[in-house]
Amino acid sequence: MSDIEDKKNSLIEKMGSEIITLAHGSGGKAMQKLIDQVILGFFGQPNQGPLEDQAIFDLSAYPNHSIALTTDSYVVTPLQFPGSSIGHLAVNGTVNDISVSGAIPLYLTCGLILEEGLLFKELIEVIADMAEAAEQAKVKIVTGDTKVVDRGSCDKLFINTAGVGVVNNSLNIRIPNIEVGDKVIINGDIGDHGVAILAARGELDLQTTITSDCQPLNGLIQTLLAEGIPIKAMRDVTRGGLATVLNEYAQGVNLGVLIQEAQIPMKTEVRGVCEVLGLDPLYLANEGKLAAVVPAEYADKAVEIMSKHPAGQNSCIVAEIVEDHAGRVVMQSDFGGKRVVDMLVGEQLPRIC
Amino acid sequence: MSDIEDKKNSLIEKMGSEIITLAHGSGGKAMQKLIDQVILGFFGQPNQGPLEDQAIFDLSAYPNHSIALTTDSYVVTPLQFPGSSIGHLAVNGTVNDISVSGAIPLYLTCGLILEEGLLFKELIEVIADMAEAAEQAKVKIVTGDTKVVDRGSCDKLFINTAGVGVVNNSLNIRIPNIEVGDKVIINGDIGDHGVAILAARGELDLQTTITSDCQPLNGLIQTLLAEGIPIKAMRDVTRGGLATVLNEYAQGVNLGVLIQEAQIPMKTEVRGVCEVLGLDPLYLANEGKLAAVVPAEYADKAVEIMSKHPAGQNSCIVAEIVEDHAGRVVMQSDFGGKRVVDMLVGEQLPRIC
Repeated sequence: MSDIEDKKNSLIEKMGSEIITLAHGSGGKAMQKLIDQVILGFFGQPNQGPLEDQAIFDLSAYPNHSIALTTDSYVVTPLQFPGSSIGHLAVNGTVNDISVSGAIPLYLTCGLILEEGLLFKELIEVIADMAEAAEQAKVKIVTGDTKVVDRGSCDKLFINTAGVGVVNNSLNIRIPNIEVGDKVIINGDIGDHGVAILAARGELDLQTTITSDCQPLNGLIQTLLAEGIPIKAMRDVTRGGLATVLNEYAQGVNLGVLIQEAQIPMKTEVRGVCEVLGLDPLYLANEGKLAAVVPAEYADKAVEIMSKHPAGQNSCIVAEIVEDHAGRVVMQSDFGGKRVVDMLVGEQLPRIC
Repeated sequence: MSDIEDKKNSLIEKMGSEIITLAHGSGGKAMQKLIDQVILGFFGQPNQGPLEDQAIFDLSAYPNHSIALTTDSYVVTPLQFPGSSIGHLAVNGTVNDISVSGAIPLYLTCGLILEEGLLFKELIEVIADMAEAAEQAKVKIVTGDTKVVDRGSCDKLFINTAGVGVVNNSLNIRIPNIEVGDKVIINGDIGDHGVAILAARGELDLQTTITSDCQPLNGLIQTLLAEGIPIKAMRDVTRGGLATVLNEYAQGVNLGVLIQEAQIPMKTEVRGVCEVLGLDPLYLANEGKLAAVVPAEYADKAVEIMSKHPAGQNSCIVAEIVEDHAGRVVMQSDFGGKRVVDMLVGEQLPRIC
């Protein structure tokens, strides 16, 4: 059993049945106890001596690098779902937003909004998951904030994380680089996160073995860069799904994106759920997938490198950049027909992340 | 009328009566419109071309500096209150958390959690206030995220901001530096923010002209440093009030802190409200106050410099560090008696920031 797992179990035994009160957000004694015992117990203390309101770190070891900064709030429901939790998501989601720029993620913040009445057990599990995910992604959670709102003013627990990374000034991974002929590569099956959340909500009588694909992508991306793949543009594929990212590419450079339906990597079970529920898998959320645009001549090599990485099983070319249908994404179906894949208009599944 | 005010009014006229739906958080078309028209309309776009998920900036103009990173979530209710709003607060609060380390705040993130059904008017007012506060504090809001939760799952609107600043490596403003004889200086009247919020809630039949003291402190702090004041430790005085900060000092170095009640700067009206409602002004929240610890021989000069700054009217020495009652804050009353001022135990006023 890991260190974090040990700490989690002993803390839950000790105080798991206590509940969060407004005093835990007051700046006073109760909050101090919460921070000391739960938060710093898992994240560690960034500085010696009394806790400060800000983390200070030295980046002089990274000359010729710029700073990458990002933020995401996490409001997924339920807090725990097959294969992952809001805690893992709050770390990996922000790590991935930093990483797709080519940056190495280093430091994270953690802003908690807790609902009065939340069980300490629920909070401890989430914080332990954040610690576990940070360890796996090799980032440090160095500063934070805790607010408590009255019962009914939030749904259990929301998390915001901001992330800071360093990006080599020689890199320029941005949508305007995309050209006709480039290939879009994805690092595995789409839709797992969306289906896992749907099943976890229990509103539908949906039995599935699918688990969320939530994972950090920094290792995979840094491997691609180290192997010399000249990635031109990259996004992680999250809410809005693959369709949304490909539309951002098409609109961003006013070129066409052509998907081959037969090439979309997807588990049979996910396909089945989509057919039964009338969902389009291209819009299903993912939390451990990226869509990288690379020059055609590097595409096979990129797929090969990615496939060998634990975060890249089932990697493949999923689309290409074309001159036709500028600004639009079109899918060539298995039966030869073509259809436009637009940006999501309504909301397929709320509070997915 | 300022540029921001103009933009706000024309946008409210155009779309103020629309409401936020779950689709505004879906990653699709509605969200794109919200970001383009409301968010980027006020914050500007950090990069040319399509929007990226992370902001990249170069800090090579700051050699011999480290990075300061902080975060705060804002859940204050109501969203608008006398003298300020959650939008001003979300910028100034984070600017101040960065600044009290001696760092120059540069970049902010903005994470929004919106409740389905929120009026666009309410959102636009808050975003315009954030833009106004950022302009005043000379920081840029460079990256963000928007989530929408179903009606009843949050109370209108929560904001998280994270801040990045640069701090000169020659500075070392930290609690362990505090020594016996040092003076604690505050930059003006305490309790205004707490009383303004209390009045704005309308639950009590409280008529007051007090407005929130919400303001950025970076200009004041940089002036003190530029004038050569060797600040030893510094905190902004927010939730938990002056009592909390002084207790953090006392406990942090295991020395005593002695307050002279007669020296506490406070408006007569705030004193009156406290007497009527049985509140202790030492625990009332502030949003534009700092408590700086300086060597005794610099105290008068520091007060003089601060008093000349717009953010430091009514600055004064409020306490001193003593050997007695180690780890505790004691107040010498106007009538000669002494009482211990402990950390806040319960919750005096929830959702104050």
